This record gives sequence, structure tokens and C-alpha cells, in this order.
Amino acid sequence: MTRAFNFSAGPAALPEEVLQQVAAEMLDWRGSGMSVMEMSHRGSQFMSIMQAAQQDLRELLAVPSNYRILFMQGGAIAQNAIVPMNLLGRSSHTAAIDFIHTGHWSGRSMVDARKYAPVNIAASSQDTGFACIPTQTSWKLSQDAAYVHVCTNETVHGVEFHFTPDVGEVPLVADMSSHILSREIDVSKYGVIFAGAQKNMGIAGLTVVIVREDLIGHTLPFCPSAFDWKIVADHDSMFNTPPTFAIYMAGLVFQWLKRQGGVAAVERRNVEKAALLYDCLDASDFYRNPVDKDCRSRMNVPFFLQQPSLNEAFLAGAQERGLLQLRGHRLLGGMRASIYNAMSIEGVQALVDYLREFERRL
Amino acid sequence: MTRAFNFSAGPAALPEEVLQQVAAEMLDWRGSGMSVMEMSHRGSQFMSIMQAAQQDLRELLAVPSNYRILFMQGGAIAQNAIVPMNLLGRSSHTAAIDFIHTGHWSGRSMVDARKYAPVNIAASSQDTGFACIPTQTSWKLSQDAAYVHVCTNETVHGVEFHFTPDVGEVPLVADMSSHILSREIDVSKYGVIFAGAQKNMGIAGLTVVIVREDLIGHTLPFCPSAFDWKIVADHDSMFNTPPTFAIYMAGLVFQWLKRQGGVAAVERRNVEKAALLYDCLDASDFYRNPVDKDCRSRMNVPFFLQQPSLNEAFLAGAQERGLLQLRGHRLLGGMRASIYNAMSIEGVQALVDYLREFERRL
Repeated sequence: MTRAFNFSAGPAALPEEVLQQVAAEMLDWRGSGMSVMEMSHRGSQFMSIMQAAQQDLRELLAVPSNYRILFMQGGAIAQNAIVPMNLLGRSSHTAAIDFIHTGHWSGRSMVDARKYAPVNIAASSQDTGFACIPTQTSWKLSQDAAYVHVCTNETVHGVEFHFTPDVGEVPLVADMSSHILSREIDVSKYGVIFAGAQKNMGIAGLTVVIVREDLIGHTLPFCPSAFDWKIVADHDSMFNTPPTFAIYMAGLVFQWLKRQGGVAAVERRNVEKAALLYDCLDASDFYRNPVDKDCRSRMNVPFFLQQPSLNEAFLAGAQERGLLQLRGHRLLGGMRASIYNAMSIEGVQALVDYLREFERRL
Repeated sequence: MTRAFNFSAGPAALPEEVLQQVAAEMLDWRGSGMSVMEMSHRGSQFMSIMQAAQQDLRELLAVPSNYRILFMQGGAIAQNAIVPMNLLGRSSHTAAIDFIHTGHWSGRSMVDARKYAPVNIAASSQDTGFACIPTQTSWKLSQDAAYVHVCTNETVHGVEFHFTPDVGEVPLVADMSSHILSREIDVSKYGVIFAGAQKNMGIAGLTVVIVREDLIGHTLPFCPSAFDWKIVADHDSMFNTPPTFAIYMAGLVFQWLKRQGGVAAVERRNVEKAALLYDCLDASDFYRNPVDKDCRSRMNVPFFLQQPSLNEAFLAGAQERGLLQLRGHRLLGGMRASIYNAMSIEGVQALVDYLREFERRL
């Protein structure tokens, strides 16, 4: 098979030109005589790769100078524990963590948070099957929360925040794993942003944490050193050996994104791609997306055939056409098309063509 | 520059044929239409990669069936906290952790362990500048230790255990990061073995944990779910998204190792390589390795020029000859040649030739 259109929710498709560059540099990175994978993380060559990646990410997201960018490991799931272990030292031990429960991933985050503090579900869309984001006026925030946790794009349920919550002085913590760099954001409205890299930034094994400086240094005493943001920040993400190849990959993706015109340009394309796919789904009774229109994710589009008995035939036909990894998350079944930055409009068009063809054929 | 001889202590040299395979498979893994990096970790393709890697490692190290192999993140440094968080639930809260202090890395491990339990330094070679491994008869183990921690190869100080400690019924925990797979071991003598992959198994970002089943499930309540061995084991290392590309790389290295004849064959080569280098150093007063002969590491060879003023000239000449990353660890200065499995005898011979030439030229 030649290169296919890959709709995986993550690890996910990467820009082909990035993969070509990686293959070309594999045995000898720019005359160094070695692969990036073989370099000491403390050598000048890798240091320059790492610094460029940090600087490019700072530029792409317009990260203010009072925020640190940390490269960590363990994914967003590890941050579910790392965030409370790092933030709860600044609160009284009775302070609750406010959660906005909008789908699978915000739910998962609560499980670990409960080990460290009481959890207050300030709002939930569970009774709608997570088909919307509760409007902010309905949120019942605690008087004195340690922080407010949101998952701004729910990869499984396909809902996305299209507004920035305002929670006053309380730190707003956002799991942006599946839509970071897909749209412009105002970083200054957040206390902490974290994201696994394997959707819009690169490959699995790298976690990016963007944290306001005043929130660093309040770690609970049992937090492992490798996950203490202060230690990580003080060592420029080199307290432990960083995932060097994953950082190199992220750096190449950041440079690719700059060549695309940056986040604003990519966001316009993402709006266009999402409209193309949702319009196709909405135009037919054969397919169904259950999410409220104003909360739909631009990145992750779950959809269902009205006749689930056709699911396997649909997937087999998609595979034949080089439309890969469309099977839905095991919790929801059905289908899911993840259309991250690296998915081209041609890929979405090919999917739309197939959706129409499959319906027509029957 | 073409491919050089790379003596980095880690991330470290990889077998060239592995890198060639990675480059060849970069855009299309075996007709799948995608890179391994782009595959869902839950898809059948990546699952087969992961299972093969686990099975090959089990075979290479003859891991008994009552041990689990876990693929984790955070490196050995994270395990410094993860190990006590996972083992201390089976001990009284006053039980000490016994440490054998043999160099930088066992020292680092103590720092995190102290957060969770009292530490007893049962033996230390600090007064010798970590030039030896204390003989086991001198160890002052606690009556009822939670476990005994050893670092069986000290990457910085270049000392290696050439015997397997016997600590009776107490679990023996070994950080084998820098010599795993370089020699045959009897896994059944250990309770827990952990190792970062970036020296002898692949690339940074993957940590391998081999743990006896009865030691799983005794986690302290505040251990993050992603680092709870029981949760990791119950989810076959897929509780969080695993570092898929790093696992693929490790799998390729395991297959390469099997093609070399397995661990026993590689160990014979490692003995030969180490002898070649140490014999050269010992034959000259110009160079010095400070470690007792019967404790010298086969993997990491620190050495010092009698005239430190020549260090930069030595390194520049080495670089010219394609002998890379020989600068010693910042704590010790001088030089260090790491000669892991992927370093060929030709590479060690080239270094030896240069050592002789540099001395002769002066």
C-alpha cells in the first residue's frame, strides 16, 4: 500500500514531509555521524534541537514569558495525578478540585484527582450522553477551589469547547491533548495546559505542559522528583533523560506548522475540513453524529450508521480505499474520524466521497 | 560525515542495520500505508509489534513465567519513586529500604526513596571514590527491610556487579539501565529489575520493568494510576498510550540481538571489547582508569589523561577520527567510553588505536 489517509485518534497521522525528513536524517543527522536517537541529551546538537522545539512552540501558541514549557513523559493520563500533586500544595487540604465533566477524558481525570483532594463536579453533560458542553452560567464552582479542570476537546465523545472558560482567580487547568495547536488560544487565561503529543504534535511518549510560573513550586511531599514541575523546570526538562526522539519529532511538526502559516492558518483549514465532514453527515439520514452543533469537535468526529449491522462492511470498504483507522472508540462503537492538523482536505474529501458512495450503493 | 563510532553513555549508539530498517519502514510499515508512529496502539498491527517485543525480551533474558514485563515511561529516575510507591504497601511503615551505595545512580535513587521510607545504607564504596563494589560479606542489611536496592552497573563511575547478590527472602531491586542485555543474568534472583531503554535496548522514553508477580498489587494509595504496576500489568502496558515508536525500536533491537546469537554470544563479545580497552589503558601511564579490576564495568569505561590540560586536544582529535561523545560525565571530568552491545569490536579497536597514537604523538 502507498500512503493512506489515516483517521486514527492517536497516535495519529503525521505530515508526510516530516516523515520523509526523518527517514532522510535517520543514519546521519546533518553531518553529525549519528542519528538524533543516538545523541547525548546534554550534547550541543540535541540541546539545539530541544531549544528550537520549545521556542517554536512558544511562538506558535504565543505563550507569554511568565509561562514555562515543560517536556515530560507519561501522557495526559499521568498528568491526571501530576497536576494535583503539583497544585495542591498551595491550597488548604480541604479545598476541592472543580471538574467540568464533558466526556470520557474529563471523567478519567477525576479518578486520579480523587486520590489527592475532594472532587466537585461543577457541571456535567453526562445526562445528555456527553452531547454538549454545559454553558458556563450553569457551572456550580466551589467557593475556594484548588483549581478548575476542563478537557477542552473530548477525543472519544467528540465535543469541544468553543469558548474560553472564565473562572476568575482560580487556576484553570486544561487537558488539550487532542486539539492543541489546532486553533488559536489565549494561553494567559489558563493556569496549566497539558497535552500528550501523539495527536497534533508528534508521537506518543512526550507530554507538553505549559504552566504559569507562580503555579510552580507547590508540590505535595510525596510527588516523585521526575514529576515535580519545579524540578523539571529548574533542569530545563532534563532532570531525567528526556524522550529525545519524540522531542525532535515534535520540533519537526512545529516547523511544518510554521510553514503552513502557523496556528491561525491551520485553524481556518480545520474549520473547513470539519464543515465538509459534518455537512455530509447531516445531509443524510444514513449517518448520525449525536453532538450538539455548537459543541462539535473539529478534530474528532464520531458517527454512527443507522444500521450497525453494516459497520464491518463500511470499515472493510474504507480500508480498501486507503481510509484507515475509522473504527470508533470501544466505549461508543460506530465510527470515528479524527481529522487533526496533518489530515489534508483531500483526505476529508476522500472520506466524504466514500460516505456518499457507501450509502448510494445500498 | 558518514557513520561514526559513537561512545555516548546514553542515549547511545544503535545497530546501523536497525536504523536502516527504521528508515526503510518510515513511510509505510510493511504495506500498512502508515508509519509505526501513526498507528493506534490498540490496533492489531501495533499490538503484534508490542507482543513480539515482550516475547523476544522474555526469551533473551529467560524471564520466568511468574514475572511480568512492563513497558513504562519516565526512565529509571521515575522508577526511583515508582518502586517504593509500589513495594512499600507490603511492609510496615517503619521498614527501611536497604541501599548499596556504589556510585552516582544508586545515590540518586536514595533521594526519592527517602520520601517514602527510611533509607539504610547497608554498604557504601563512597570512601574509595566509588572505585569498587563492597563485597557482600560487608553488607549490613536491616532485619526486616522492605527491599534491597542495587544499581548493578554504575554508568558514571564505571563499576559493575560481577556477582548476583543474595539477600534471602527480601526482594532484591536492581537498576540495570546501563548493562541490561549485555550479560546473562538469573532473573529469578531478583524481585524487580528496571532499566531505561536508551543504552542497550533502544531509545530514550521507554522504561522496562520486570517484576515478580507476587510483588505486584501493594501500591501506596497516592501512587498515580499510570505508575501503579498492577494497573499497568492488568492493562498489558496500555493503561496510558505507550511510547509506541520506542517500543518498536526496542523490538528491532531485540531481534538484532537474537540475530547476534542472543545474550550469551553478545556477552562474549562484550568481555572481549572491554578487555581490549582496559588492557590498552592499563598498559600506559598516560591514561588511568581508577576502578578496581574486578569491579570494572564492561559497558562504561571512565578514563583520565594524566595531563588534564590535554583533554580538549584529545577530544578534538577523536572527533576528527569519527570517535564521538567521549567527554566524561560532568561530575568526574576526563573521558568516558561507553561500549554497549551496539558498539562493534572495530569501534573499540579504533579507539585503542587512537589512544596509542595520541600518546605517541606527544
